[in-house]
Amino acid sequence: MRQRLNLILLGVRDVAASVAFYEALGWRKAAAGSDEFALFELGGVAVAVQSRAAFAADAGLPDRGPGGFAGFALAYVARSADEVYQVMTKAAELGATVTRSASPNPWGHSGYFTDADGHLFEVLYEDGWIFDANDDLVL
Amino acid sequence: MRQRLNLILLGVRDVAASVAFYEALGWRKAAAGSDEFALFELGGVAVAVQSRAAFAADAGLPDRGPGGFAGFALAYVARSADEVYQVMTKAAELGATVTRSASPNPWGHSGYFTDADGHLFEVLYEDGWIFDANDDLVL
Repeated sequence: MRQRLNLILLGVRDVAASVAFYEALGWRKAAAGSDEFALFELGGVAVAVQSRAAFAADAGLPDRGPGGFAGFALAYVARSADEVYQVMTKAAELGATVTRSASPNPWGHSGYFTDADGHLFEVLYEDGWIFDANDDLVL
Repeated sequence: MRQRLNLILLGVRDVAASVAFYEALGWRKAAAGSDEFALFELGGVAVAVQSRAAFAADAGLPDRGPGGFAGFALAYVARSADEVYQVMTKAAELGATVTRSASPNPWGHSGYFTDADGHLFEVLYEDGWIFDANDDLVL
């Protein structure tokens, strides 16, 4: 297994509504994909949004339904503290549920929200994260 | 919000055990990070593994515990059909739960497994996925 992750799958109730939400946040849908399988190219990794029921069936798992904590988040690493507050405000305006308001912490600033399907996002800024010319994190 | 995703967060019961599992699958831990927060640089996106309890508390969410379907998967896009079966076999040998055995489908080959914390992985190969020189998906 090579040192690479290309794709993240999200099961959602309404693909069009999810696409509208992510586009309103600032991501643009890729040309590839379909009405049932929408793709966002996010710099080395793509997020694919599809029917939660179909996804659960394809994976051979029972669907316990959205809500609660799934042990998972998509983390958006902002380029400034201001951007954390801007993105959190924008998400809330778009109907996201803020589970922890943006606030300073010992490392910088962060907040959390869930989208309409309970998928958790952390929005963070920390001086310690360094980016290279490709906007990749330098680890 | 720029067109970029840099980091995926996974809450786990035992960080060291999860690191051992991912390393055994073939990913190497990044130099950055700590015993409590292990990082894997995966080509434009990094996966961070941390305590599930601490993560839930940080996110302001109740932890409903692992298990069941969370509407999410990390999808590993293999470079050949053979690699799908090899990775699925390796994962099972390492103690992963195969929720759907690798098999042909109309587009190629795929299988699913969950790791010790119920995080779902799809391992897939399809002729339709095109990679560029950086091993990024061409969308």
